[in-house]
Amino acid sequence: MSPDEFRKHGHAVIEWLAAYMEGVENYPVASQLSPGDVRARLPEHAPEHGEPFADIIEDLDDIIMPGITHWQSPNFFAYFPANASPPAILGELVSAGLGVQGMLWATSPACTELETHMLDWLVDLMGLPEEFRSSGPGGGVIQDSASSAALCALVAARHRASPGDLKVYTSSHAHSSIEKAVRIAGFGDDALRLVDVDDDFALRPDALAAGLASDVAAGATPCLVAATSGTASSMAFDPLRPVADICRRHDAWLHVDAAMAGSAAICTEHRGFLDGLDLADSFCFNPHKWLLTNFDCDCFYVADRTALIDALSVLPEYLRNQASDSKEVIDYRDWQVPLGRRFRSLKLWFVLRSYGAEELRAMIRRHVELASSFASWVEASDDFELCAPVHLNLVCFRHRGGDEVNHELQEHLNSSGKLYLTHTKLNDRTVLRMSIGQARTELRHVAAAWEQIQAAARG
Amino acid sequence: MSPDEFRKHGHAVIEWLAAYMEGVENYPVASQLSPGDVRARLPEHAPEHGEPFADIIEDLDDIIMPGITHWQSPNFFAYFPANASPPAILGELVSAGLGVQGMLWATSPACTELETHMLDWLVDLMGLPEEFRSSGPGGGVIQDSASSAALCALVAARHRASPGDLKVYTSSHAHSSIEKAVRIAGFGDDALRLVDVDDDFALRPDALAAGLASDVAAGATPCLVAATSGTASSMAFDPLRPVADICRRHDAWLHVDAAMAGSAAICTEHRGFLDGLDLADSFCFNPHKWLLTNFDCDCFYVADRTALIDALSVLPEYLRNQASDSKEVIDYRDWQVPLGRRFRSLKLWFVLRSYGAEELRAMIRRHVELASSFASWVEASDDFELCAPVHLNLVCFRHRGGDEVNHELQEHLNSSGKLYLTHTKLNDRTVLRMSIGQARTELRHVAAAWEQIQAAARG
Repeated sequence: MSPDEFRKHGHAVIEWLAAYMEGVENYPVASQLSPGDVRARLPEHAPEHGEPFADIIEDLDDIIMPGITHWQSPNFFAYFPANASPPAILGELVSAGLGVQGMLWATSPACTELETHMLDWLVDLMGLPEEFRSSGPGGGVIQDSASSAALCALVAARHRASPGDLKVYTSSHAHSSIEKAVRIAGFGDDALRLVDVDDDFALRPDALAAGLASDVAAGATPCLVAATSGTASSMAFDPLRPVADICRRHDAWLHVDAAMAGSAAICTEHRGFLDGLDLADSFCFNPHKWLLTNFDCDCFYVADRTALIDALSVLPEYLRNQASDSKEVIDYRDWQVPLGRRFRSLKLWFVLRSYGAEELRAMIRRHVELASSFASWVEASDDFELCAPVHLNLVCFRHRGGDEVNHELQEHLNSSGKLYLTHTKLNDRTVLRMSIGQARTELRHVAAAWEQIQAAARG
Repeated sequence: MSPDEFRKHGHAVIEWLAAYMEGVENYPVASQLSPGDVRARLPEHAPEHGEPFADIIEDLDDIIMPGITHWQSPNFFAYFPANASPPAILGELVSAGLGVQGMLWATSPACTELETHMLDWLVDLMGLPEEFRSSGPGGGVIQDSASSAALCALVAARHRASPGDLKVYTSSHAHSSIEKAVRIAGFGDDALRLVDVDDDFALRPDALAAGLASDVAAGATPCLVAATSGTASSMAFDPLRPVADICRRHDAWLHVDAAMAGSAAICTEHRGFLDGLDLADSFCFNPHKWLLTNFDCDCFYVADRTALIDALSVLPEYLRNQASDSKEVIDYRDWQVPLGRRFRSLKLWFVLRSYGAEELRAMIRRHVELASSFASWVEASDDFELCAPVHLNLVCFRHRGGDEVNHELQEHLNSSGKLYLTHTKLNDRTVLRMSIGQARTELRHVAAAWEQIQAAARG
């Protein structure tokens, strides 16, 4: 495809995407296809000869689009938001076109330096501890996901810890990625301690302290505590300061996962959960969830980068270069699992500049307000009840009719295509999650969702 | 940014990228900036209010572009190719715009099914073993990198192995990602065995057999052997069949890393290295290197997916869904480290269809022929010598004047901006690597590079 053909097809794709943005509300939110439906329509073999680009776009419409679940729909209330804003999309486009590798500073200096700079910008914007700024012993890096961030934190913590029978602690409501990281890092089946939560599903510091003390008494070594600021199930916030105090007493690494909620810290009034974060060793949050920067973009900070780099650095001759030898540069390959890396900070730069801090704050505030409205409707209803304290943009609620009724409700609503929501379990009861964070979501979408939920419940 | 503004700015970015493609040859290949130069020109804080998109593009030109090392330049001969072709860029653009998560089949069925289908297409195109096809107990998945693929293979191998003192084997010329994966997975410092290579830098099966036998005699358990098809230093090919036989005898997992060379298997005449791959447990190669599909796109195959999924699956309530429960679908989150995942198969689909197999083969053959020509010029020269057998698209050569001369030569050439090449060490001598794999590279670029190398050597 020549540059001129790229122009032609590129303009067509831009038009296609603009039309998608304008029409995304009209698609069934969750794909209504059955397993195998997409593959059944694809040819068995790759073509021998090139095909016209228009044919590919036609198949995109006919074969792929019915199999898409529309995370960009304003009626998407499932899981967590995964916003792809127009400036982020264009940042990703430029990144793909430049096609640079950012594994070393030397392989594209701007890729490394813009990333460091964006991560420092976010320290200011969010009021994060000074420890996370790149000018000191710490610093930030973009990971693909909070899962990978947790794995890197764990590997760094192990590197820093004294050898022994290492244990990892997290609440029973923490994300599955913590357990997955413990498995991948090979801590052994017995290493993970799930700590009890309180009535609001937040980690109980007394239970954590007791757990560490009991393990230490038995000869084990607390290696890492993973606290969550905004759990996946119910947006619970583990109390960081008492947790950090316990970690300090035992020289355990404190990792704080704020994948979903972290972006809210750009608003001063939603920053309360950061109290104690200055005592943490690492922290991550996902602009690819709630800061308009499309996946993948997890910002991962460490208060001291030494253990992370020492744990992950392997330097073969074919990667050696003067800049690395000078120790004056950051080589981000030593901050992550893979060697290669994309120019991901471009999209973050495009987003922060296109919107400016004020417009991003306004979006967060709007979503929080919508969640609050939704919660008030649930509270006022006879048939439904709230199931957890409402923090930020998530409302956990259920029909009073029992688990079966809620499952049927969810199934009925999702198969309508009019909205999409998912469930969890809280206190062993099935609970519906209304996660309000898509950039296009307005009051009318949330109000319509509540109408549909009530109508479905009436049968 | 409204859809209409996205149209306007999107068209501008497409024009910008088309002009970049037309002009990429005119940039200094390696960035000539010093550490800190990019950051020094960026404002200290994120803007409070949104800025015009045109300002961002202006800064992209003024601040970022001088800090770019042009991996898309036809004069890029460093490291390995990382091609971003026009159809791949447009596939990435559509993927960013749709912004779907492919963690579960249910979160966007087309994302999973197209990926499975593309990986099956490649089994055919490359003549890979039937074991890797998704219709049997095995199957393929897209990882971000060969590093992550190696880590997943290692975690799966450990899951399958009997507990014990597990050892991992790879050649002393294997990629650093194997050592990194062993560290991350927590096998311990003593677990990695670097096996001797022969005169062509390929793993010696006799040394491997002796290493395993000696470890077994000492009570250890061979867990995984990582063979390389096309090493990073010199494109050496470990002999898979004898290696596989040794693995089978000891129930060790055989992982084959063909990150760079794998794409060549689309040409039947370059498929010889696959002999024995039917006995491997896992295999990966990177279309983001030599198959015109921009980073990240590593294709990772397993002959039996059971151990991989069992090792990596953690199923919290909030991810449960009917499709997963039915066991009729693939949930790729269980095939990788992160939970979230982009719709990466779109770009592979765009590439395979836009070019067709025949045009992709022609590119591979052209690069191999160019490398062969370059090698013949080196051989005919009095001042330079070849330092390794020339396989596929890589020529390892050096000036006969010694290490210092070669380092100066490299430094001089790279700072000229006219070409970019990197070095390695073979038999303790510094060697220059001429890696010919950029899609735009023609005979004239390789010939000019050779002229410049000779001129620089003359001083």
